[in-house]
Amino acid sequence: MKTEKYRVAPGKKVKLSDFDPDDELDGDKSAWKAHFAASSERLVELQELLYAEGKHKLLVVLQAIDAGGKDSTIRKVFGPMNPQGVKVATFKAPTEEELGHDYLWRVHARAPGRGNIAVFNRSHYEDVLIVRVKNLVPKAVWSKRYDHINDFERLLTDEGTTIVKIFLHISKKEQKERLQDRLDRPDKHWKFRKDDLAERARWDEYEDAFEAMLSKTSTDHAPWYVVPGNHKWARDAIIGRILVETLEGLDMQYPPAEEGLEGLEIPD
Amino acid sequence: MKTEKYRVAPGKKVKLSDFDPDDELDGDKSAWKAHFAASSERLVELQELLYAEGKHKLLVVLQAIDAGGKDSTIRKVFGPMNPQGVKVATFKAPTEEELGHDYLWRVHARAPGRGNIAVFNRSHYEDVLIVRVKNLVPKAVWSKRYDHINDFERLLTDEGTTIVKIFLHISKKEQKERLQDRLDRPDKHWKFRKDDLAERARWDEYEDAFEAMLSKTSTDHAPWYVVPGNHKWARDAIIGRILVETLEGLDMQYPPAEEGLEGLEIPD
Repeated sequence: MKTEKYRVAPGKKVKLSDFDPDDELDGDKSAWKAHFAASSERLVELQELLYAEGKHKLLVVLQAIDAGGKDSTIRKVFGPMNPQGVKVATFKAPTEEELGHDYLWRVHARAPGRGNIAVFNRSHYEDVLIVRVKNLVPKAVWSKRYDHINDFERLLTDEGTTIVKIFLHISKKEQKERLQDRLDRPDKHWKFRKDDLAERARWDEYEDAFEAMLSKTSTDHAPWYVVPGNHKWARDAIIGRILVETLEGLDMQYPPAEEGLEGLEIPD
Repeated sequence: MKTEKYRVAPGKKVKLSDFDPDDELDGDKSAWKAHFAASSERLVELQELLYAEGKHKLLVVLQAIDAGGKDSTIRKVFGPMNPQGVKVATFKAPTEEELGHDYLWRVHARAPGRGNIAVFNRSHYEDVLIVRVKNLVPKAVWSKRYDHINDFERLLTDEGTTIVKIFLHISKKEQKERLQDRLDRPDKHWKFRKDDLAERARWDEYEDAFEAMLSKTSTDHAPWYVVPGNHKWARDAIIGRILVETLEGLDMQYPPAEEGLEGLEIPD
């Protein structure tokens, strides 16, 4: 599998209509599932190595429209890893205290430490998505944020964090089916809020905001990947592969033993 | 399986020699593994329900001697759950800032919120374990802590947290084998520190400290379980069962849909 095709080149002007959320549907589903299983096994090893080496930090940002699959991606892709080294940060509407600070304050606090993976379920990008679409701050304010974000991510990568940003791309029809499923299943009601309908009605405005985000903030140091999201088996396999490639690129090593331990026998 | 046999009755004077770390070895290993697999599947459902309902909070405290199996318990028992609702807090030697506060300060900060599970890998109990064994504070100070801890845990449970405390009980011989394995395997070196030998030499003092902890802080609201730890398949199955029973006891329900959603169809 080539993951470059999903990667947004820095400076490229993104049109989401150029990306097919049904991409890979022609593929062999069981082969995709086997591919994901292999990546998943490898990711468990790589995460242990990342933790053991205690040198690198990995930040994975997940963004999508409502019902885009962020939660299930987290469960499927990150679930098998050791929960000790994987911290999921879910960014909801900011609290009073958070609103009393700049919008990157709460995000910076959840950045990964050495040896750890942080997964952002939503992120600072909400401050150029929902905030833009719903005019929560004036354009003069949000329009400066793309630069802040690139600068902030540059700081993190300069200081040893590897950043991967995943945009889960689903169709409007797929969102309809998923929302309907939440309405129809009593064990999924809790995921549905009336507000979801008002948000869905702004689909086109969100597309514009996503396109601006992808066009302005995919950088060499912190690239965006637009992952086709309509079919979970393809989505999981592609994300798994992106993460394997990213972690293998770090050339990690188990740390050597302390001096003087060679041949040591533990006493009774 | 009866889990009561592992539970420490409040006020009981515990002698660890009364608990067999090889307990259950006579059992059918594959039956134990099947038992754990069933519990594990059920736990994934119960954790989702806990998260969905957003009402209860679960705190699981794990304590053990070095190499007692805390890390692998976390990976095996909590790994399959959705990482979004499970926060692992690993308490290492306190930082300067943490030492500037009382010993429960950093612990309180990591207590679970509604709908979440917090897993403590080590905990406030270190302040009556390593702190006691190594005389890091005078006896006059640590001896008061059992009461503080019971009071603190009472606060948490009164305010809606369910607490389960697991002591992983291994034999001195089992610890030797596990430490030797860490020395002998290059991919396990990172888990071994020379200091582990000095700690092992204090085995008997740790036993005394564990016995005092178990005797003084197993309460109706926050019970300790002494789980036989030599055999991981039995250990995992017993812990899985304890957690299933605990969560099922909460009588959780998926929240009802918001008013006015019945029969609603999502528009195109």
